[in-house]
Amino acid sequence: MPRLKVTLSYDGTDFVGWQLQKNGRSVQGVLEQAVERIVGEPVRVHGSGRTDSGVHARGQVAHFDIPEHRLNVPWRRALNSILPPDVSVVMAEQVHDDFHSRFQSLSKTYSYTLWVEPAFVDPMRRRYVWDCGPVDIPAMEQAAAELCGRHDFTSFQNAGTEIKTTVRTISDFRVQQGHTGYELVWLVTADGFLKQMVRNLVGLLVAVGRGKADHENVRSLLDERDRTLAPGTAPARGLCLERVVYPEHVEQDTDDDRHQMGTEHIRD
Amino acid sequence: MPRLKVTLSYDGTDFVGWQLQKNGRSVQGVLEQAVERIVGEPVRVHGSGRTDSGVHARGQVAHFDIPEHRLNVPWRRALNSILPPDVSVVMAEQVHDDFHSRFQSLSKTYSYTLWVEPAFVDPMRRRYVWDCGPVDIPAMEQAAAELCGRHDFTSFQNAGTEIKTTVRTISDFRVQQGHTGYELVWLVTADGFLKQMVRNLVGLLVAVGRGKADHENVRSLLDERDRTLAPGTAPARGLCLERVVYPEHVEQDTDDDRHQMGTEHIRD
Repeated sequence: MPRLKVTLSYDGTDFVGWQLQKNGRSVQGVLEQAVERIVGEPVRVHGSGRTDSGVHARGQVAHFDIPEHRLNVPWRRALNSILPPDVSVVMAEQVHDDFHSRFQSLSKTYSYTLWVEPAFVDPMRRRYVWDCGPVDIPAMEQAAAELCGRHDFTSFQNAGTEIKTTVRTISDFRVQQGHTGYELVWLVTADGFLKQMVRNLVGLLVAVGRGKADHENVRSLLDERDRTLAPGTAPARGLCLERVVYPEHVEQDTDDDRHQMGTEHIRD
Repeated sequence: MPRLKVTLSYDGTDFVGWQLQKNGRSVQGVLEQAVERIVGEPVRVHGSGRTDSGVHARGQVAHFDIPEHRLNVPWRRALNSILPPDVSVVMAEQVHDDFHSRFQSLSKTYSYTLWVEPAFVDPMRRRYVWDCGPVDIPAMEQAAAELCGRHDFTSFQNAGTEIKTTVRTISDFRVQQGHTGYELVWLVTADGFLKQMVRNLVGLLVAVGRGKADHENVRSLLDERDRTLAPGTAPARGLCLERVVYPEHVEQDTDDDRHQMGTEHIRD
């Protein structure tokens, strides 16, 4: 059966998270319902990874298989006409049968947005920022630099998921100006992330930014391998899954048809 | 009684608009309730002008009078601790007794944000944009230039408000890039605006941008003074009141205490 890869953007505020749950509205659930409406039978959708309740995405990736006779559907347009307004399909592509959104991902990039003006929060940004107040940016940048590289991130993993290894490699961790002068956006890229790892790393950075820890604590926190010693978890609402990268998959403008892989017949 | 000027930011999505109404949640209403909780008695709040249901603000201005013994309240912080999350006080200042938010405004600036990517809308931006699809920007800029200056804007006024004159002066009408590569932000400044005038002007611009009108129609639409001849009204959700300017009121960073006028005792 032909396999489709979809890139998704969503506002996580009103979802229980990516993962299908018995009670509650999940992104996977509404996507599976939309696919079922087009295909005419239940279809299992596989995501690149879970996002928690309240966590957003601009580049979540999922894949699913469709019957041959549904290849002529303009998938992006069809799904967007069915999906609720808080989920959008940014891109739909046909991929090889062996493509797997989770097992083949090479790296992921998350953003975490801090609102640093203490007196008020822009109501139009309130769902997408952590209003943590003023922070010392150079100190946080030093801490972020210490976190880069290959480490055992046990101290930054919340319990609840069985995994083979807690070693991950952060290849980039940088800050940039956000939409307004009151926002700081942290961008972190790694070969993979442990459960709530980004929110735990940001919790540490903000503790450093508030002068409650310094970059020299970072190394010892990594060495201790003990979650209870590290600062608390940052709120979900500031977090957004920006991008998932796969082998031989060039970064591409979602509008640029020249870069689409074999999708002529399914693009709108 | 001392008079306070407050600058407000709000997400208009869940409001019936600025103006107090018998049924429905208005910005004026929630602000008056918050002021009453601090002062201990009902207080009338006066805004610089109405915004429609669904219209947002980053710089709406209102004023109200408070008893002398409430001058020592840290007004911004106190109001923000009471107001719901979709309204924030950006600044609170004591002003002269003769300050009036509506009668003394010299100019207002509105932004209108267009989402021009046709295939999807970012769910996190859906409340703040009109997803109008691709438009011809240079053609729209020509039309915007024709609208600048002193004109009778009867063709761009919706019925329902009695006013002395329909002549207004647009001093600036320009476009800039929005938060994402898919957004265009139109910024328009005038000495005042008629009912739904910005949304009607944007309705014309988008008609021009879609090739359904050209900039030469602008002059004749102004001359006709007939609302029924002009293109339809743009949706409320793309509109935001950015700024209201008053005499001798310099543009100021809301964080910069040096520029605050006599507010030492009421700032947080």
